[in-house]
Amino acid sequence: MKFLRVGEPGAERPVVRAGNGPGPGRTYDLRPLTDRIDGAFLASGGTERTRQALAEDALPETDCSGLRVGAPVERPSAVVCIGMNYAAHAAESGAEPPASPVVFLKTPNTVTGPYDTGRIPRGSRTTDWEVELGVVIGRHTSYLEGPWQSRDHVAGYVLANDLSERTFQLDDSGGQWSKGKCAPGFTPLGPWLVPADEVDPDRLSMRSWVNGEPRQDSTTADMVFGVDVLVHHLSRYMALEPGDVVLTGTPEGVALSGKFPYLGAGDVVETEISGLGRQRQRFEQG
Amino acid sequence: MKFLRVGEPGAERPVVRAGNGPGPGRTYDLRPLTDRIDGAFLASGGTERTRQALAEDALPETDCSGLRVGAPVERPSAVVCIGMNYAAHAAESGAEPPASPVVFLKTPNTVTGPYDTGRIPRGSRTTDWEVELGVVIGRHTSYLEGPWQSRDHVAGYVLANDLSERTFQLDDSGGQWSKGKCAPGFTPLGPWLVPADEVDPDRLSMRSWVNGEPRQDSTTADMVFGVDVLVHHLSRYMALEPGDVVLTGTPEGVALSGKFPYLGAGDVVETEISGLGRQRQRFEQG
Repeated sequence: MKFLRVGEPGAERPVVRAGNGPGPGRTYDLRPLTDRIDGAFLASGGTERTRQALAEDALPETDCSGLRVGAPVERPSAVVCIGMNYAAHAAESGAEPPASPVVFLKTPNTVTGPYDTGRIPRGSRTTDWEVELGVVIGRHTSYLEGPWQSRDHVAGYVLANDLSERTFQLDDSGGQWSKGKCAPGFTPLGPWLVPADEVDPDRLSMRSWVNGEPRQDSTTADMVFGVDVLVHHLSRYMALEPGDVVLTGTPEGVALSGKFPYLGAGDVVETEISGLGRQRQRFEQG
Repeated sequence: MKFLRVGEPGAERPVVRAGNGPGPGRTYDLRPLTDRIDGAFLASGGTERTRQALAEDALPETDCSGLRVGAPVERPSAVVCIGMNYAAHAAESGAEPPASPVVFLKTPNTVTGPYDTGRIPRGSRTTDWEVELGVVIGRHTSYLEGPWQSRDHVAGYVLANDLSERTFQLDDSGGQWSKGKCAPGFTPLGPWLVPADEVDPDRLSMRSWVNGEPRQDSTTADMVFGVDVLVHHLSRYMALEPGDVVLTGTPEGVALSGKFPYLGAGDVVETEISGLGRQRQRFEQG
């Protein structure tokens, strides 16, 4: 099952697709159940209600062809990011793998749709891509007892591009990364949200391309800290809210490595995670 | 004029006080104008509508005695923090004053009322206080042309305590500070919001006490980067939204200096900024 939001920015409507095949499949209008795919919907059994409605053929089929696809969850209260969570990416960034998860935040207003035009920030010469697995939180999450409790607090998974401006992040920032992570449009999410019980987050292949040339090619099995460890760990430092998004880090193959040029106007970035779909952003000067 | 929100958490109602005297003064129910003091209210001329209603004696007087005071603005989309923005505090933290503003984020769900019980995070031995001037944004703010445009984008000012867990922030974090800034209840705001045109943010005295003993005693005149510079600077790196809060940094006199003990259960922290009121939190183990 895939949750999506379609329509113009700020006016998206919720739809759902049955099954997890690669094709578009049939799409159903979710508005008989909810006007919003957000934390309140996810925390109140929305996934199970949707499954039941699909099983009962209670949702009207809807035509989404030609419609913009938005982020599949409405603006979260927090976008929490894990840094240096793939050993090879830490190495290409000039760092050791961390002993404990490295945590920073993006502003939630960076969230945008998976095919929206990318915006290179004004003054940027070092805009970079990062394919990442996004964890969407399903319940208020604070002081979990251990990683075994994490899965009950995850609503689902989503593909993300954690766009980054490296000069802002590393040189202009006094070392605090958020300054290079919050430019408008810097967190494309989607195209869809898959419920947690339909995904094995520890075994997902993930790739990215620029202008059709391969860049990143890895698997979530290479994460230093897996999803269960991360959600438990975060819960000791902050309360996660339903609808919040945790971006779990990116593998090697970004421009920061020095192996590839940074993004410029006209470049096209594609990202993909198995089962979570594919994004495509064409970049313009912001 | 002072905006406040009174009532139990999540059920606060908006009220306003005329004038800026130190006493409680008369309090008026704002619900004839709005149910919420939030970004939408501030961005749509809410301050001017309130002034007009007070001038026309169009708001009913209301009795708030005995009611809890909440944060004066509803949960922002972002709490943006400026680090090391007072030279003497940078020095006590072992750092040089920054060449460019240091930016990090707190999760918005840390915002709480000015007298709510403080919570020492589980496992914390180094919980610290930070009195700060908070800037509440009044309009969508992106790519301002210069500092002279900043004032038009500020709705008002608020007192904040930017509570911090130093071990989480500096030792467990791989250097990214947010990990020590986001524990539940870590951003007391208020008691009230004063409209921007009634405050000179560059000349405010600010103080803090622990168990009645003085800790911080400074003035916003000592900020490395003033409000106008900060808002313009931030707008080059992120879009600020109405209702967002910018915490502008803390002066010297925190426990991180080594001169004072960190907070423990039973300790009482008070913070004050001239014209923006006084907070008081009694701490318990979280």
